[in-house]
Amino acid sequence: MEKFWINGEPGRLIDITDRGLAYGDGLFETIAIRQSAARFLDLHLDRLYAGAARLKLPAPERDGLHAQLAAAAAGITAGVMKLILTRGPGPRGYAPPQHPQATIAWSVASQALRPWTQIRVRWCETIAGRNPLTAGLKTLCRLEQVLARAEWQDGSIAEGLMCDEQGLLTGGTASNVFIVSGARLRTPAITHAGVSGVMRRVILQQARGHGIDASEALLTRQDLLEADEVFVSNALTGIRPVGQLEERQWSPGPVTRRLAAQLVTLGVDECVGNC
Amino acid sequence: MEKFWINGEPGRLIDITDRGLAYGDGLFETIAIRQSAARFLDLHLDRLYAGAARLKLPAPERDGLHAQLAAAAAGITAGVMKLILTRGPGPRGYAPPQHPQATIAWSVASQALRPWTQIRVRWCETIAGRNPLTAGLKTLCRLEQVLARAEWQDGSIAEGLMCDEQGLLTGGTASNVFIVSGARLRTPAITHAGVSGVMRRVILQQARGHGIDASEALLTRQDLLEADEVFVSNALTGIRPVGQLEERQWSPGPVTRRLAAQLVTLGVDECVGNC
Repeated sequence: MEKFWINGEPGRLIDITDRGLAYGDGLFETIAIRQSAARFLDLHLDRLYAGAARLKLPAPERDGLHAQLAAAAAGITAGVMKLILTRGPGPRGYAPPQHPQATIAWSVASQALRPWTQIRVRWCETIAGRNPLTAGLKTLCRLEQVLARAEWQDGSIAEGLMCDEQGLLTGGTASNVFIVSGARLRTPAITHAGVSGVMRRVILQQARGHGIDASEALLTRQDLLEADEVFVSNALTGIRPVGQLEERQWSPGPVTRRLAAQLVTLGVDECVGNC
Repeated sequence: MEKFWINGEPGRLIDITDRGLAYGDGLFETIAIRQSAARFLDLHLDRLYAGAARLKLPAPERDGLHAQLAAAAAGITAGVMKLILTRGPGPRGYAPPQHPQATIAWSVASQALRPWTQIRVRWCETIAGRNPLTAGLKTLCRLEQVLARAEWQDGSIAEGLMCDEQGLLTGGTASNVFIVSGARLRTPAITHAGVSGVMRRVILQQARGHGIDASEALLTRQDLLEADEVFVSNALTGIRPVGQLEERQWSPGPVTRRLAAQLVTLGVDECVGNC
């Protein structure tokens, strides 16, 4: 049973003139709920408010929003919270209203944890557009990801990897990608495309805190194919080791296992187990 | 007084899970209303249905939609119709639902014609992302245009011109751009960015029908600065001659005037007059 709130009140209807619908003029967050708590809520709000500042979106007072979201997560053992912030309703035209009234909406639903398994991935033909102004942000403009995800129906393929026009790896359709080469952990830089994932941020912090050489880099398909280990990350699934990409196969490696075990200590229950 | 319809019924509220809002997973049209008729309605629907086919969006039966839109325009002397088509509501996740139920929404409002004048434009710093899969389409993902339009407040500047990462001119934030060099009319190709404007299409047809050498091309800022005439086009404003771009100035030239006069014969009343 999914529950919805709009501007703090129960409800699920928004005005057709909302700029989130009209122009993708907004941001969103997808947050795991574990044991009645919105996991990494502060990191999600950090990203949301940083994005709002970059786009000059109005945003509600943070402490009050934090309290409302924490309350919405209560009673849910395992689930997902979605949070949407838009520039609100407005007249036709791209020019932002002088005094926009933000729309802030959230929803919560139970969702069972999936077992920790290796996954199979594919390359997507759909490219990720490059734009430094929106790179890193989880904006409402996600049609490229929709089209990339629509490229396959095969249920055995869990994720698709995308590159930009220059052939640089940007990430999965709904995840960040990491590669391990020797002792080095690398993930695509998000200066021109890609999303600054909260789980990505946690993984980079954990890796550095445990003495792993971790960096953001410009990575190609070839870098990935030559890597010793590959995994994807996402706020709802933690770390998922990539076992197969077309002809290339990997076994879960020591760096991936070590980071997954570290995440478990932070409440990322979906990384419990062996695969 | 603006009037709204959603899926054929009067109303202005949509579900928060609509993929148009969640992911920009949809298209829109902005259509001029003149003398109780939706102008170039067939061309707008051509573009909408072509876009829907490219994105594999479900779309309502065309004849019925055409009739409803024509009826909605009745009684409006001069105004604007906005039409939105989305992949409809759905569960969380980028993967399109197997059996999507489209949302089709439209609105009409009166809007007085603006006098035919030369306009002042500027360069935008915000770049237009390149993606051949969505290039030409008027998708709901328009955050780049919003950010470009937010670059200036000066009411004397009517439009901002955008380039892509390669420095190629893509168009105005809400218009197409044409340049005249000698006897040649050129407009940016829309293979990697930009919108396939209905007025742009009408102008190219008219130009070719009247023996003007008209083509789509890769154009740079320098091409524009060196042009003899520059104008922008839009479904609501027809042709607007560019009189000033930062230090560069132009007077309305013969090709621009000739095309504007031709548009007037097609019902583009906003190009009536001298400027």
